[in-house]
Amino acid sequence: MTPALEYHKQLKGKIEVISRAQIQNRADLALAYTPGVAEPCKAIAEDVSKVYDYTRKGNMVAVITDGSAVLGLGNIGAEASLPVMEGKCVLFKQFAGVDAFPIAIRTQNVDEFVRTVENISPMFGGINLEDISAPRCFEIEERLKASLDIPVFHDDQHGTAIISLAGLYNALKVVKKEIQDIRIVVSGVGAAGVAIAKLLHLAGVRYATFVDSKGIIFAGREYLNAEKESLLKLYPNHAKGTTLGEALVGADMFVGVSGAANSVTQEMIVSMAENPIIFAQSNPSPEVLPEVALAAGAGVVATGRSDFPNQLNNALVFPGIFKGALEARVRHITDEMKLAVARALADLVEQPTAEYIIPDTFDERVVRAVVEAIKLSHT
Amino acid sequence: MTPALEYHKQLKGKIEVISRAQIQNRADLALAYTPGVAEPCKAIAEDVSKVYDYTRKGNMVAVITDGSAVLGLGNIGAEASLPVMEGKCVLFKQFAGVDAFPIAIRTQNVDEFVRTVENISPMFGGINLEDISAPRCFEIEERLKASLDIPVFHDDQHGTAIISLAGLYNALKVVKKEIQDIRIVVSGVGAAGVAIAKLLHLAGVRYATFVDSKGIIFAGREYLNAEKESLLKLYPNHAKGTTLGEALVGADMFVGVSGAANSVTQEMIVSMAENPIIFAQSNPSPEVLPEVALAAGAGVVATGRSDFPNQLNNALVFPGIFKGALEARVRHITDEMKLAVARALADLVEQPTAEYIIPDTFDERVVRAVVEAIKLSHT
Repeated sequence: MTPALEYHKQLKGKIEVISRAQIQNRADLALAYTPGVAEPCKAIAEDVSKVYDYTRKGNMVAVITDGSAVLGLGNIGAEASLPVMEGKCVLFKQFAGVDAFPIAIRTQNVDEFVRTVENISPMFGGINLEDISAPRCFEIEERLKASLDIPVFHDDQHGTAIISLAGLYNALKVVKKEIQDIRIVVSGVGAAGVAIAKLLHLAGVRYATFVDSKGIIFAGREYLNAEKESLLKLYPNHAKGTTLGEALVGADMFVGVSGAANSVTQEMIVSMAENPIIFAQSNPSPEVLPEVALAAGAGVVATGRSDFPNQLNNALVFPGIFKGALEARVRHITDEMKLAVARALADLVEQPTAEYIIPDTFDERVVRAVVEAIKLSHT
Repeated sequence: MTPALEYHKQLKGKIEVISRAQIQNRADLALAYTPGVAEPCKAIAEDVSKVYDYTRKGNMVAVITDGSAVLGLGNIGAEASLPVMEGKCVLFKQFAGVDAFPIAIRTQNVDEFVRTVENISPMFGGINLEDISAPRCFEIEERLKASLDIPVFHDDQHGTAIISLAGLYNALKVVKKEIQDIRIVVSGVGAAGVAIAKLLHLAGVRYATFVDSKGIIFAGREYLNAEKESLLKLYPNHAKGTTLGEALVGADMFVGVSGAANSVTQEMIVSMAENPIIFAQSNPSPEVLPEVALAAGAGVVATGRSDFPNQLNNALVFPGIFKGALEARVRHITDEMKLAVARALADLVEQPTAEYIIPDTFDERVVRAVVEAIKLSHT
């Protein structure tokens, strides 16, 4: 048995539900349970907003998946996704003190998934969607945002987008380029790729080319979907050719969220503009290893891995996002909030260098900075 | 603000989700989260039963309601039910060390409720249904028992039935009557009344009369439902008349689960057989107060209240039921198990008296006795 399996078997679950009420005698029971409990029930029945005063809702996030796109493992189903969901809940608690509970949903029908989440929402102050395949994840998130009165946040999209933008802000300082001038190439046009492209556009990026498993995407190509078409409206395609290698010629930045290990070669990086920025974010095997990219002239390299410098880790984002949203009773995580959080994370790095564009995962300033960014951008 | 409201406001939730994993550094993260977490995911994808080894499922119960019949407050809805659901989770943890999480479901459509519970079941090792109105609760429980591979237990039915039977076993010793001879009257034919009647029949009771808000029920009467008709097959009605008072004449036992405070008068108890057993279980206001019943000649009186002797409290039942079911990986809580648990609870009282027919709520022997009863009756 490997260390990670042994670790999980010994632990018997990475989360636990405990009692905050001490029940030692009848008097305790009479307050926490019958007959005393009838009073908060009646108060909430009269004014539903009181549920935040008398229950755990105000600090409780649901981490919800259907198991359709778990890590790099793909569609492994609800039960098999649970170790990841529990792990996510651990990060919520350890980094931000937010209670989070894993919910793995045993349907991959979009209508039924949405109804199920709506139906169980009363106990939760926020919904973190996780590891749901594209393009289903886009419709699911939009519908839940429209129907629920609590924040809904698909971390694979927006957490990834925010951390990428934070890293980009400081990478641009290192390579001395301006955001509105750079040409980027995004490889992988699923949940993360779409969200990164949209947020970078809001931040000022004007030129982007997208590459999926069929090659460069362009208007009228086969195998498009609504999300890919919307990206082509944001960023009209000026690329020559059809392959990733052709797209990269002269580009200033590579964003890899494709899952395609080692798909970027040294030659491709040599063909890019001077001091290219390489964000090879696929995990655990990036599109190109840092040593390879640097040897080919990359100005800054970031990955999703903890064993290289510049780890673009969503754990810097989602705990503070939800903590801030819960503290300020935010209904929607807006684009303004995402931009503000990215800027706040970037600003924690006072002197960006090629090896330090993003705070460390264990940097204790991070959660408070993210919370404050949410609150300041909450009107 | 009353003490119970103040208590809930100060506590900010009676439950909390904590991390069992200590995340202090990158090595911890690599075990509990990526990349290590992929290993238990893959193991569960290959063999779904491994979810009990690598996640919290094996100690996790969902406490689920639709808010349709909360305490004596009625149909107050999902959010307003949450203080009770959290309280129930507290009892699971404090009495049996079982993790329990509250789920309040925002639909009262039976099909949709059932589908929602099925959909969220992967994280849970058992389902405790709570405060769901009759007769919907019967269909919901039956359908979930048929479709899920984890135990489903509607506590308002079976917890109440088990504790009532446990009390009855010892009350019969006190009044020196035999179970097959007694005539009982059940007032209130909802979730609790139906389940009590069925379990008492399995335990040997042969004569019972049922009274609902329209009076004595009999074949062909108006306002019957499938459950009430099934009770008339178990217990053919021999009662004369139509009222509760007429039903009680000559009866040996009154079981009150009607919600009708003070509906049983001193005169009615005087009209019963010698040394009648009075289980006036409506909460917080019983059908008759112990002092009134005793003055009228009752042999044994029990209520649901903690401030009188003989508290028939479900908290003696459900924590141990689920702990035993989880430890033995039981799929169904069978009738044999319910009978065994009732007997085990009764047997904890070595010398039953009129004021001591049931163990105290804080009796530390209870959970282990219930767990052992479940395991011994699990084939």
